Amino acid sequence: MESPLRLLIPGPIDLDKRVLAALAEPVIPHYGDDWVALYRRLQDGVRPHAGTAGSVFLLAASGSGALDAGVRSLTSPGDRVLVPVSGYFSQRFYEIALANNLEAYKLDVKPGLAPTPEQIAEAIDSLSIKTLLLCHNETSCGAICDVEAIGRVCQSRGVNVFLDAISSLASVEIRADDWGLDYVAAASQKGLEGPPGLAPAIITPRGWDTYDRNPARSVGWYFDFGVWRGFERDLGEYHPQPATMPVNVARALDVAIGLQAGESRGDRYRRIAAGAAGLRSSLRELGFKILAPESVASPTVTCAFVPPDLEGRVGDLLAWMRNECGFILAEGFGPLQGRIIRIGHMSRLVFESYLPEFLSGIERYLRLARAA
Amino acid sequence: MESPLRLLIPGPIDLDKRVLAALAEPVIPHYGDDWVALYRRLQDGVRPHAGTAGSVFLLAASGSGALDAGVRSLTSPGDRVLVPVSGYFSQRFYEIALANNLEAYKLDVKPGLAPTPEQIAEAIDSLSIKTLLLCHNETSCGAICDVEAIGRVCQSRGVNVFLDAISSLASVEIRADDWGLDYVAAASQKGLEGPPGLAPAIITPRGWDTYDRNPARSVGWYFDFGVWRGFERDLGEYHPQPATMPVNVARALDVAIGLQAGESRGDRYRRIAAGAAGLRSSLRELGFKILAPESVASPTVTCAFVPPDLEGRVGDLLAWMRNECGFILAEGFGPLQGRIIRIGHMSRLVFESYLPEFLSGIERYLRLARAA
Repeated sequence: MESPLRLLIPGPIDLDKRVLAALAEPVIPHYGDDWVALYRRLQDGVRPHAGTAGSVFLLAASGSGALDAGVRSLTSPGDRVLVPVSGYFSQRFYEIALANNLEAYKLDVKPGLAPTPEQIAEAIDSLSIKTLLLCHNETSCGAICDVEAIGRVCQSRGVNVFLDAISSLASVEIRADDWGLDYVAAASQKGLEGPPGLAPAIITPRGWDTYDRNPARSVGWYFDFGVWRGFERDLGEYHPQPATMPVNVARALDVAIGLQAGESRGDRYRRIAAGAAGLRSSLRELGFKILAPESVASPTVTCAFVPPDLEGRVGDLLAWMRNECGFILAEGFGPLQGRIIRIGHMSRLVFESYLPEFLSGIERYLRLARAA
Repeated sequence: MESPLRLLIPGPIDLDKRVLAALAEPVIPHYGDDWVALYRRLQDGVRPHAGTAGSVFLLAASGSGALDAGVRSLTSPGDRVLVPVSGYFSQRFYEIALANNLEAYKLDVKPGLAPTPEQIAEAIDSLSIKTLLLCHNETSCGAICDVEAIGRVCQSRGVNVFLDAISSLASVEIRADDWGLDYVAAASQKGLEGPPGLAPAIITPRGWDTYDRNPARSVGWYFDFGVWRGFERDLGEYHPQPATMPVNVARALDVAIGLQAGESRGDRYRRIAAGAAGLRSSLRELGFKILAPESVASPTVTCAFVPPDLEGRVGDLLAWMRNECGFILAEGFGPLQGRIIRIGHMSRLVFESYLPEFLSGIERYLRLARAA
């Protein structure tokens, strides 16, 4: 087999060999003792990363599906929601709000920055907002926001908070209950270091209150958390979820979560943050400029402008890194396309095996491009 | 490794070794040339089984998700729909209709039978039905309905038809365009012989008309086929679907579909039907009674009552088959629980390698149970 390309994109990530091997084990049913034990381990593996005593459902869906599910289950058409938008994925959260017939207000944030608690407080107060739809970590710009401080602003105003933690969960601390969050959406192929195909949907006790008081929640079946709660309640020991699950993906995710067990969560988050800071520093030394200021720079995705003398060469750099070094990087979206490179580093493999080779590849490219 | 248990349940199915091996290949991105080529092969592999010139979307979801997506995209709240219900999965289609605020009418059908064109015509005429939600193959009872004849009844009355083909697609002929269907929902882990995790959602040209004329379709994002059509149109050459996909599952499904290429579709459907008929005949010889009359017996799932002298021993039989022979069978639902066994035989492996051992296991059990 040809040597595979290595992923330095903001998910999916490369998988540990043991995780890949689990994918190929024979299929098991999505019910019965073995399945229930596996499903419970997955729930118990995800829950502490979200910091909640609430429910964790493993949706057979992508992270965007989990966003849609949260909006569908915990709002009613016409609800006034605020969506800070600084890039492609926060814009998606806004579109999901519109698609669910919410009265959605956009808070424009400069790409590379993060919404501040003050901006959000002001918008909530002037617009009588009921719910904040917050993208924790905008992977199109590599910027992360301060959910704790924003949560405080919302709690004091009785505003619900739904968090898109797709690219942050299991890489960054989240304390959903303490921070007053109702809902957290994630995905299996990012910080949890599993294959794509499952989306953890986390409803806090506060979120269940919101659900139960929601007059018009009954729209749809698959993404209605009441349906999921019903299966947990009625068939929890046998078939705790309403539908067929991607069992191979679930088993691989279980192995991935198991591989993380030797390290405390705090140590994990610190290690990831320190690795990202080191990467930014190395890139700066090579003449790159990081899009996000250091105060909001993402621990899982780095977006960087190429050195000024090589502006316009982003496509060339990405192609060279792929063809000569075997690394797949991502490019920018919209106005940032052709101006930045985006590096996903949610996988332990990045810092434990790829990084030196990646940086030396970048360095070689710069030398060649300048010599040409 | 312990010898794995073999699945004789109505999905998921056991996978060919080559399909399992594809699951464990390194992750690739869900965009770009390689992905688009793979996605197109999957669409082209599914489309002929549905018999349509329409769209095939590969949803990251279970089959139930695809049912919900079809109902959500192609109906409006308050629409009058008819749902023939003969068992657990047709009942689910009814519940999905209710969850989407449709005015849903149930046509009760005796478990083991299938709704007839006459019954459906009568219900449509008396209730002014707009849409029929039809379960093609009720796996809780092992009975299949005549979609062609039912489609004719609906076409002549201008009634839309959405087909739950989760347990029939790629095992039984479906000609969605000829038969006047709007929508067909399927799943990767049944007749397509892939792993669970993807749900083909098929919209016929007629279905797109229904979608485009639907005044209130805009509820939800992930399951709105307009969103999927938009990505196809705007980003078809790069990112033809809106969300991250379970790429490992997709690659394995591609291998599975590729393995079917040596046989014509007609030969395939005939082989599967003949295999199922042979299985029913063998079971009858052993004293079992098949729940469904031969005229509506399913080609993919067989439900059978144990011989009369062993009534009440179903749980014992299933446990024995699992522990002594390594076969996982399914039991009945609701009033049929403890009365029937359910055998899924969507996988080629059943007829090519398991069947003799399965039947001899059943025979041994009968002997032992009668001797005890």
